[in-house]
Formats: sequence, structure tokens, C-alpha cells
Amino acid sequence: MHEKIATIEDVARHAGVSIATVSRALHKPDVVSQTTREKVQAAIATTGYTANVMARNLRLNRSGMILLLVPDIGNPFFSAILSGIEQGASKAGYNVLIGDTQNDPDREATYAAYLRSNQADAMILLNGRLPAPLANSPANATPPVVIACERIPGCGLPTVIIDNEQAAFEATTHLINHGHRKIANVAGPGNNILTVDRTAGYRRALSEHGIAIDPKLTFVGDYSIDAGIAAGRSLLADAKTRPTGLFCASDGMAIGVIVAAKELGLRVPQDVSVFGFDDIHLAAAYDPPLTTVRQPRRRLGEQAITLLLDRLDPKTPNKTGKTDPVIVPTELIIRQSTGPCPQG
Amino acid sequence: MHEKIATIEDVARHAGVSIATVSRALHKPDVVSQTTREKVQAAIATTGYTANVMARNLRLNRSGMILLLVPDIGNPFFSAILSGIEQGASKAGYNVLIGDTQNDPDREATYAAYLRSNQADAMILLNGRLPAPLANSPANATPPVVIACERIPGCGLPTVIIDNEQAAFEATTHLINHGHRKIANVAGPGNNILTVDRTAGYRRALSEHGIAIDPKLTFVGDYSIDAGIAAGRSLLADAKTRPTGLFCASDGMAIGVIVAAKELGLRVPQDVSVFGFDDIHLAAAYDPPLTTVRQPRRRLGEQAITLLLDRLDPKTPNKTGKTDPVIVPTELIIRQSTGPCPQG
Repeated sequence: MHEKIATIEDVARHAGVSIATVSRALHKPDVVSQTTREKVQAAIATTGYTANVMARNLRLNRSGMILLLVPDIGNPFFSAILSGIEQGASKAGYNVLIGDTQNDPDREATYAAYLRSNQADAMILLNGRLPAPLANSPANATPPVVIACERIPGCGLPTVIIDNEQAAFEATTHLINHGHRKIANVAGPGNNILTVDRTAGYRRALSEHGIAIDPKLTFVGDYSIDAGIAAGRSLLADAKTRPTGLFCASDGMAIGVIVAAKELGLRVPQDVSVFGFDDIHLAAAYDPPLTTVRQPRRRLGEQAITLLLDRLDPKTPNKTGKTDPVIVPTELIIRQSTGPCPQG
Repeated sequence: MHEKIATIEDVARHAGVSIATVSRALHKPDVVSQTTREKVQAAIATTGYTANVMARNLRLNRSGMILLLVPDIGNPFFSAILSGIEQGASKAGYNVLIGDTQNDPDREATYAAYLRSNQADAMILLNGRLPAPLANSPANATPPVVIACERIPGCGLPTVIIDNEQAAFEATTHLINHGHRKIANVAGPGNNILTVDRTAGYRRALSEHGIAIDPKLTFVGDYSIDAGIAAGRSLLADAKTRPTGLFCASDGMAIGVIVAAKELGLRVPQDVSVFGFDDIHLAAAYDPPLTTVRQPRRRLGEQAITLLLDRLDPKTPNKTGKTDPVIVPTELIIRQSTGPCPQG
């Protein structure tokens, strides 16, 4: 037989006091004597009794849970971010409940309803969209909500992001500084705010260097390796129109572009330079090692949970109105997939 | 201002009935009239009222949560497994609460205590170790617990795994069938059950083909790319003792071995064949594309949640005693990192 779960009755029996006394010792320790408190504590240790956390949280009108909405838990991009959030939450006595929305507005709304029915005390959105029930929430939403990774335009909620426009600007400028003039933009899906921001940075870099934007040099993908292979085959096949540099909105697409380049007999970076985005775990071990924009993913998670805990802290005065987004700095990681322009 | 959260009072006002009637309509629908039920349902739809899920779960003595212990949420290996579990749980009306144990027995014990205090209804262990408070639990533990990915020797709890011994046997046999005789074992940490099982399969393949086991051809790593680089440098540097084939216990280590082989001027697979394990997302896009053992990660997650939901279903008769582990089949994926033995 497995060990019986200890109840408050077991604690009372071991301590030789009434159930009411155990309850008082647990919840109003100042009204019982030092001796009684010690007897109850010893009985709790002996029996392995755990107060019913759910009941206690109900009494405190809190769940002890922080809800985290991710668009796809199957995407390893999120794992380091989740790890950063999880550790910060755990230190503050909260647990993290992850909801996988699969980009489905119905699932987003269902999770938001859990938040509003007190099944979670707060929420972090990594999915770039405000669930319908929260659409009218002001910056000082109760329960608190924090946005991370994908900013939501016009939304006043506290937000932790990288500066995607600036990062794309710097990556594209790096290619320009190495003599490249014909630079492709292997972009994410058009309706995604990351795409909007990264494409804006790519365009600003070209404009500031007097390079005309050629719409034929933009390929719209979905961040996947397969999309990168398609982009590479499409952009690199014709030697006459071929770009010498490609700025890719994900390392996955950069890897796909390199796979396609090799298929076509092109050398990276001697014939074509490929710039990635994210600095995924494998970027350094790829052949050639990827030049990329490092997203500080764990730091993004840590900042998001710090912002949320601040809102949850009763000692923090109520914050109202919009706050500026917290920008976590990115870094260009220059490896061997980029080099000087062969025609430079 | 954000929309006010609807209360039971709001529902009563909209329906033109008392709060007690709303409560009866919700919890004992058979004692109120059809007309009243319809009025209350219409008022719930109008107000957007959500019953307090936490209070309802407390009444039902359930949390609606399934707790998932993972050794490291930052390891992308788990993302597809979590995704499989999450979707199965969601379909059955459960939410998944992920606990990141960081291989810390104290954290494992803390999460197990949550389970026992009814903060979760059931638990799936992906961390290969029984938390201390559960160490004496029998196969029909209440609340139910299912083990996935890493079997726990001697533990009678329901378990979903791959056959690591057989998979390693098949991978090593593939190398032997291609003429390799000097085959290295780039293994995981020695205290890990995966290592024990995969090393056993590697050894069985050599034995069955009359090849002596050379302890100098085993390298103990930690599944990481860096460990693979170290293994490759150590095993491949000396042309006299160099193996022609390497069975690696993770794709990360296989990639590291290939990085080291290229550093040493060796061609993969012409000079050395490298076999991985896992079939991570990038395996097919690596250069050369990795030959590996495909772990059906989503399927592992789906099977684990199916087994757990079965235990949670009140209609399923109580199961007692040990059950055989559910074995999810693996598959050898032969790509270009392996080939015939150059001396063969």
C-alpha cells in the first residue's frame, strides 16, 4: 500500500491538540503559544502534512500561478525564454502554467478566461496578439498582463522586446559595409509584427546608403528551414539577378538558404553571404558557422517575469497609463557565413 | 476602463432571478424549471460570466491541472514531447502545468508535494527520477503518475519509452553491415539510464558480430555539441587508433564529432561515418545531413497523456500491479553522415 496522505487530523493527533488549534497555529500563529506552535510544527514534520495549497490560495483569492501563452510550445525558440520566466517565477513562489495557443484565437480567449476567473494571478503573452477578452484592458490591467517578444502595436500593457528594426538595420549595414549592394530580404510572414519591424530596418539600411530597394529581392517565408531552401532556390538560381548577400529573418531560413546555395554549387561566404537572426543553439556548429543576430532569449524571459512580479507586488504603488517597452539589447555575432562581396 | 468582470449577481440581475436560483441552475439543473434554466443560460451568455473555475474544481476536489516535470525546459528536445502532451490534455479539458526541476531533488520533491496537496490531479515525469515523496508509491498511485522518456528501473508506475537498447543495437549493426569494425561509442553521462541502455545495445551489436569491445573507443559526454567536439578531437586525432564509425547518443554530439572531424581534415562519411540519435529538427539540414535514430517525440507525449487520462477516467476500473512499459517504435533515418567503411 502506498503511504496515506497526512491530513490536518493526523497533525492534531500527533501534536496532541485539537484540529482548531492546528488551524490557528497555521493561519494565526500569533494567537497560540510558543509551545503549541512548536508541537504543531514537529507534528507537521513527522506526518509530512502539506496544507491544501489550493484551499489556501482560494482563501487568499490567488492561484499562485502565472499563465504563459505561447503560440507553439513545439518551437524550440521559446525554450530558453520559458526557462528564464520559470526560474524568476519559482524564486518568487509562483508556478508557471504554459498555454499553447497554436495561434488559435479561440484557445487564446479560453486561456484569458482562466485568468479572469482567478485560475491564474497574472499572464505573460508571447504570442503577439491580445486575447479577445482583454482587448479593452488598460495598461494597469487587473490581473496584470505583460507582453514579451512580439510587441502589440497600440497596446499600453508593459512590454519586453528586442529592437527588431535596429537589429535588422545593423545586420544589413554589416553586409553593406562589406561591399554588398545587392542584398535580399528573406522575411517572415507579412502579417507578423516581427516581419514589419525587421523589413523596416533592412530598408532603412539600404536607404541610408543610397541603395534602391528592389522588390524582387524580397522573399516571404515562415521562419522554417524549408522556407529558406525555397528562398535560396528562388533568389540564387539565376546568376544575372542573384544577390551577393541575404539578410534572413531567422537562423532556420538562413540554414535553408545555405542548403540551397550548396545545391547550386555556390560557396558560402565566397560567392554569397548569409546573415541569420536568433543565434539558435546550433548556429555556431553549422557549416559554415552562422553570422547572426543574437536574441538574448533567457534575458527576455527574466525581464518579462521581473516586470510582472513588480505588478503583482502589493508594495508597488498602482501603475497607470502607458509605459515605454523594456528593450533587451541584441548583438551581432559575426561568424563565417558572411564575408566581403565577391564583386566588391 | 476595462470591462468589469461579470459576477453571479450580474447573472441573477439579467435573468431576473435570485442568486440562489442561478446557483441551483448551475449546480443542480434538475431542480429548476426549463424556463429558468434558459433564462440563466441567456444571462450567462450576455454577461460573459465565467464560474470561478478554482472554486468549482475545489468542490469537485480536482484542480483541472496535470503536472509535468521536466529536467530542463531550456532543452529543445522536450518541446515536441510537451506539445504532444499539451494537446491531448487540452482535448480532455485539462491544463498542463510544467515544472522545471533543473535535476534538483529538492525541486522535484516540492512539485510532488503540490501533487499530493491536490494542486494538480496527476503527474507525468520526464526527468528519470521518482521524487522522494513518491518513492514508495505503487503502480496504482493516487493521484496517478506516468513516467515518460526515461524509465525508472524497478518502478512499477505506467511508463512510455522508446527501446533505447534496441535502437542503439540497430544503429551499431547498420555501421557493422557497412563494413565498419572499429566503432566508437560517444555516450551520455554514466549515471543516466539512457546511457546504460544505449551502451548495452552498442555492445550487443559488437558481440553478436564477434567484434571485441575496446574501452578506449568509448567517450563519455553530456549530449551537448561541445561534448561531441571533445569526443571527436580525442578519438579521431590519431590516425593509427582512429575509429571509422562513431555511434553517438545524441544528434548534438554527432554534430560536434563532425565539427571536430572537419577541423582534422577528415571527410564525413568518406573517412569517418557518424551516427546520431534523436533526429532533431536540424538533422536533415546539417552538412552532411545526419544519419540518426528518429525518436517519435510528439508520439511519446501523446502516449503518455493517453495513459494518464486512462488512469484519471472514473469509468476505467482501478488498475493495480505493474504494467509493461508502452514502447513507442523508433526508426533509423539513413542520410549522408554514414557510408561504407573506407578500409572495407
